[in-house]
Amino acid sequence: MMKTHGDYKQRIVDSFNKQGLMQVLDCKLGAISAGKVEAIIPFSQGLTQQHGYFHGGITGTMADNAAGFAAFSLCEAADSVVSAEYKINFLAPAQGEFMIARGEVIKSGRSLLVVKSDVYTKSGDQERHVATGLFSIMRLIGGAQKEI
Amino acid sequence: MMKTHGDYKQRIVDSFNKQGLMQVLDCKLGAISAGKVEAIIPFSQGLTQQHGYFHGGITGTMADNAAGFAAFSLCEAADSVVSAEYKINFLAPAQGEFMIARGEVIKSGRSLLVVKSDVYTKSGDQERHVATGLFSIMRLIGGAQKEI
Amino acid sequence: MMKTHGDYKQRIVDSFNKQGLMQVLDCKLGAISAGKVEAIIPFSQGLTQQHGYFHGGITGTMADNAAGFAAFSLCEAADSVVSAEYKINFLAPAQGEFMIARGEVIKSGRSLLVVKSDVYTKSGDQERHVATGLFSIMRLIGGAQKEI
Amino acid sequence: MMKTHGDYKQRIVDSFNKQGLMQVLDCKLGAISAGKVEAIIPFSQGLTQQHGYFHGGITGTMADNAAGFAAFSLCEAADSVVSAEYKINFLAPAQGEFMIARGEVIKSGRSLLVVKSDVYTKSGDQERHVATGLFSIMRLIGGAQKEI
Repeated sequence: MMKTHGDYKQRIVDSFNKQGLMQVLDCKLGAISAGKVEAIIPFSQGLTQQHGYFHGGITGTMADNAAGFAAFSLCEAADSVVSAEYKINFLAPAQGEFMIARGEVIKSGRSLLVVKSDVYTKSGDQERHVATGLFSIMRLIGGAQKEI
Repeated sequence: MMKTHGDYKQRIVDSFNKQGLMQVLDCKLGAISAGKVEAIIPFSQGLTQQHGYFHGGITGTMADNAAGFAAFSLCEAADSVVSAEYKINFLAPAQGEFMIARGEVIKSGRSLLVVKSDVYTKSGDQERHVATGLFSIMRLIGGAQKEI
Repeated sequence: MMKTHGDYKQRIVDSFNKQGLMQVLDCKLGAISAGKVEAIIPFSQGLTQQHGYFHGGITGTMADNAAGFAAFSLCEAADSVVSAEYKINFLAPAQGEFMIARGEVIKSGRSLLVVKSDVYTKSGDQERHVATGLFSIMRLIGGAQKEI
Repeated sequence: MMKTHGDYKQRIVDSFNKQGLMQVLDCKLGAISAGKVEAIIPFSQGLTQQHGYFHGGITGTMADNAAGFAAFSLCEAADSVVSAEYKINFLAPAQGEFMIARGEVIKSGRSLLVVKSDVYTKSGDQERHVATGLFSIMRLIGGAQKEI
């Protein structure tokens, strides 16, 4: 069981609400637990690529969000996080009514957290696995510095 | 010199205009040449993360766009492209009036094009290198299939 | 259940035996099933980095092998495979009597197979997770072409 | 111009000589300057994959070495480095008399150095670009800790 600190769920909600992009995407947080965070968006025309599916950039954004907050769930109250890098593989066209990203911490290191993040589209009850990614999230102890 | 086919610049513009996300981002194409494409967006509050900078997902989206169109610039008229995967490293906080992504094909293979994409923020005359990525773009010969 | 073709286990063994590097590493194949392959090497001084642990390059090599053969397990008899790209995150120092890599296909596409590969060190009965990677393996239909 | 500290070239040579794997590969250091390191190996049958070319794992190992030492060239005397993660794209079959890897630091951060590393094969005077990678190298200040 990964260790959390105080009211980490509230800190995730507060940080999430400061991201202007989440409002543009109409993104909501889903299930949150120690080292795991889910985020969900509805499909809209403004999120599409040339074939009318969710744009790959949106898929990456959702994976990044879920990964970053999964890492943040294991940080102390004064810490912040920043994505150092990520890699994502696209598995299938991202077509569906919703897009769901699920981040899960694999390794919680002192400086870096390694997080996998999987993205699904959902239509009715059917989920489809559309992308999988690996993220390196930097833990900024005390949160003051913004440079990695 | 990498080989292009017919009016590839017009095909890039046409494909770009089909992406709903580009309008939401207020994205414009910049310089286009064989194997190289530039894309630019202005800063707006709707594109931010929790510190008020461009969100990493937007940085990834811009890098992906420039990479995908750089690959597309080398395709024949009937072909289409799809991102198979990418990796991106963040180099500095993405703060600035504009964000510029520059994609450049490193290797144009039969099935896969390997493309590097660099992202900069710009304020006044000053550019800052904020991210660098490596992309594998699949060439869909004839464009019919959408699965990789 | 992923689909295999004919005596895929024998084809894996035959291809494995053609790799000069596997003899230098004293590498053995472990469990093989549809879309999953395991490979094992013993520790030796010739495989170390400056701290006396398994070198990161060896960790990557083992992950790549397991991933490539996991992909190969799903190919038809005339096909071959080649790694198009991979990304690997190191999770812990690679110290132990043995190193074990386990590749597992996530998506078996027509042209590309996406494979995750995890690497462990083992001392006595204890396994330690030392690296995790994501691989894009190109399926070369008919095996003739060697260029991707 | 990137900043070095004291006799960094000698420290690179000393660290290089502690890696057992470098002797097995018959690897030599090439040109060394601030943020840039080159490493070279001759072809041998023990380094091959199933088609008789340099094994992809060796390509990755060489890229990793050049990247790690490029990062190390910018560290202070007491620091050490460790690869946190990397991604590599293969561009062409790695066939040739020699393999040369060239690492170059893109961003020297406080905790992480982002390094690109390109790998070439050489036969006679002809070089061929066979792989390109992006590395995140962790700077271990004081060198004591080995965990990232």
